[in-house]
Amino acid sequence: MTDQAPAPAINADRLWSRHMEMARIGPVEETGNCRLALTPEDVEARNLFARWCREAGMELTSDRAANMFARREGRDPARAAVAAGSHLDTQPHGGRFDGVSGVLTALEVIETLKDAGIETDAPLMVVNWTNEEGVRFGPGILGSAWFAGRIDDATLDDIRATDGARFAEEAAASGWRGTATPADLPMEAFFELHIEQGPMLEQAGADIGVVDAVQGLCWLDVAVTGMDAHAGTTPLPARRDALLAAAAMLVGINDMGRASGEDARVSVGRLKTATEGPSTVVGASEFVIDIRHPDQAMIAHLQEECRRVCAEVARRYGCGVEVSQRFAIPPTAFDGGCVAAVEAAAQALQLPYRRMASGALHDAANVAAHAPTSMIFVPCRDGISHNVAEYASREHLAAGANVLLRAMLAKAG
Amino acid sequence: MTDQAPAPAINADRLWSRHMEMARIGPVEETGNCRLALTPEDVEARNLFARWCREAGMELTSDRAANMFARREGRDPARAAVAAGSHLDTQPHGGRFDGVSGVLTALEVIETLKDAGIETDAPLMVVNWTNEEGVRFGPGILGSAWFAGRIDDATLDDIRATDGARFAEEAAASGWRGTATPADLPMEAFFELHIEQGPMLEQAGADIGVVDAVQGLCWLDVAVTGMDAHAGTTPLPARRDALLAAAAMLVGINDMGRASGEDARVSVGRLKTATEGPSTVVGASEFVIDIRHPDQAMIAHLQEECRRVCAEVARRYGCGVEVSQRFAIPPTAFDGGCVAAVEAAAQALQLPYRRMASGALHDAANVAAHAPTSMIFVPCRDGISHNVAEYASREHLAAGANVLLRAMLAKAG
Repeated sequence: MTDQAPAPAINADRLWSRHMEMARIGPVEETGNCRLALTPEDVEARNLFARWCREAGMELTSDRAANMFARREGRDPARAAVAAGSHLDTQPHGGRFDGVSGVLTALEVIETLKDAGIETDAPLMVVNWTNEEGVRFGPGILGSAWFAGRIDDATLDDIRATDGARFAEEAAASGWRGTATPADLPMEAFFELHIEQGPMLEQAGADIGVVDAVQGLCWLDVAVTGMDAHAGTTPLPARRDALLAAAAMLVGINDMGRASGEDARVSVGRLKTATEGPSTVVGASEFVIDIRHPDQAMIAHLQEECRRVCAEVARRYGCGVEVSQRFAIPPTAFDGGCVAAVEAAAQALQLPYRRMASGALHDAANVAAHAPTSMIFVPCRDGISHNVAEYASREHLAAGANVLLRAMLAKAG
Repeated sequence: MTDQAPAPAINADRLWSRHMEMARIGPVEETGNCRLALTPEDVEARNLFARWCREAGMELTSDRAANMFARREGRDPARAAVAAGSHLDTQPHGGRFDGVSGVLTALEVIETLKDAGIETDAPLMVVNWTNEEGVRFGPGILGSAWFAGRIDDATLDDIRATDGARFAEEAAASGWRGTATPADLPMEAFFELHIEQGPMLEQAGADIGVVDAVQGLCWLDVAVTGMDAHAGTTPLPARRDALLAAAAMLVGINDMGRASGEDARVSVGRLKTATEGPSTVVGASEFVIDIRHPDQAMIAHLQEECRRVCAEVARRYGCGVEVSQRFAIPPTAFDGGCVAAVEAAAQALQLPYRRMASGALHDAANVAAHAPTSMIFVPCRDGISHNVAEYASREHLAAGANVLLRAMLAKAG
């Protein structure tokens, strides 16, 4: 589009009702969802998305990672696509908007252009990335990591789900493992709309986050070894309790993180024990530390500190410990042109906005290695996410979709 | 028997080889076992035991709790039985002797009397109690608790396994749910041989523990409630992390226990979280505290202290906590006559012995409410139990079985 052409407004009702329809797949409590990657629930969500795309006149392809690409042809089919999307998989106890909003707003952009009879020079593309959440298959943002060349074919195929299933087989069984390669799918630009998952937009009274960077992340696998023993007969000082040691590590890591500045995030969301008998002193435990910071040097520092805390605590409780890095992604600075397109759209729509870095990791951080990329945030109530209470208002979603529409049109011409 | 009649010696080879044969059911690593109550492995162990009993000329009955009773008739069938036994179920990562030795030594007593052509006045009975370990169905020592009238029929039937199965159905499916009642099974005496599961006999150089009491136990269920949140976006001080709070509770409870004297045992062997995603701050967790002490007043004190620690830690981490008692059994003093019979047997055999209280809870603590009862301990290497490395020597098992034989003969006449 040129600056002279007015952009149509997206249909807020359709966008909202599709969120609610998608949320009926894999319901958890009244307002939550559980659609772990490549489970029957995820496949049902994929098929619903595919149906909507086909009804909007788009054609679907998919790749080795079961990432889904819906294409609307442009006046110049030889041009690289202007793409947008996010993910349809959820946390096990997650909400209705995380990821879903990025896919459905991108689809809504296509529907709006179709309704208004607007064609673009560049083809447009709506993307659903596989296994963003990293719950069933670790690590997260997996599909986009493979797409960006950060994980090779064999590694991808061999990843095991927590239930033991192999990625390659699960991707094939979903019906969405395809043969398209990243080279077949050039992108002139990629935009990802997402709920903020934090409190900053709400606190600032802003409707839109113009996201210019994503903080870095690393996951550490920690394995603690002690000695199984009988809880009734083994005196407390004689124990080598691998659950107690892990517990003390969690407390020590949290204390260290709180002392490392307000941008430091160190978290443990998964802890497993080798035994679960209440009267057995645990002989082995393992947990995953999730470390994040906008500054790469601080990530390295936090990782060192975590290793130091684990080693000290293990010694104190007579246990052994091994710490290994499972996965790391450095902080990402987004493309200046894409960030400017989002900012210009927010200005044109007279929406209060804020430039910010993303606290969460997103597929866009991977796609940025493949194409010029940026993100759009919309507020979510009380900053709550990864929770059934997660909520983004119909008005904020509509505002975000209108920004996305203008940013895509600005790039697609 | 009278003091004049010499007792035959048990067959140490047969006793040992039956241990090894039983250990082939539900193997874990090279020297461990997993036979959770009423699983196919437990049923296979029960059927092997039943076959051995029948081959030894005994008749089997069972009760509502699927406890198994093998009877060898006495010269005076009207007399109450002199009984011995323990349990065949194991910890998930347990050893080959815990419980099993008590059943197999009792069976060896019968075999020895049969080989020697010795009849007794009182009938003899070998017992396998259901679900001693309390891993699959909580609480532990379940079958004997029902037998002793400590759990009513409806409560027993409705107990749910960790895998959701109902006790009544699982007991029936095992083939060992019967109609015998405790009133049908009077006992003049009950003896339980068991490995010590602690280091004291080994340290004292004693072959036999003459057990005159069992320390008391209580289990507390602790439920911690926080708030699910995204690990990347939620600042550390803003979190209500139910796993971190639980971890701090474990550390606090252990510190408190260590400060409460050398007889205090406070342990957490099971901790669960509502979510397991490494990038989700945990919104709910639960764990079980196992408290033991020989002194009932100290158990009450430790329970209060655990509640205080949990409440304080929950406040500190912005979480809620509920603590409820799942199960409690007071310290048990065994019958003086049964203790004296064991002590006299050890003296007659010139075995070094030690009078002691049991650090672990055993079925005998329940049976003591039904019949005069005591226990015999044999050493286990390094005090290790509830562990695949658990080991009791062939010589110690034989010595214990000979003590059991003499104690039973002394009672059965």
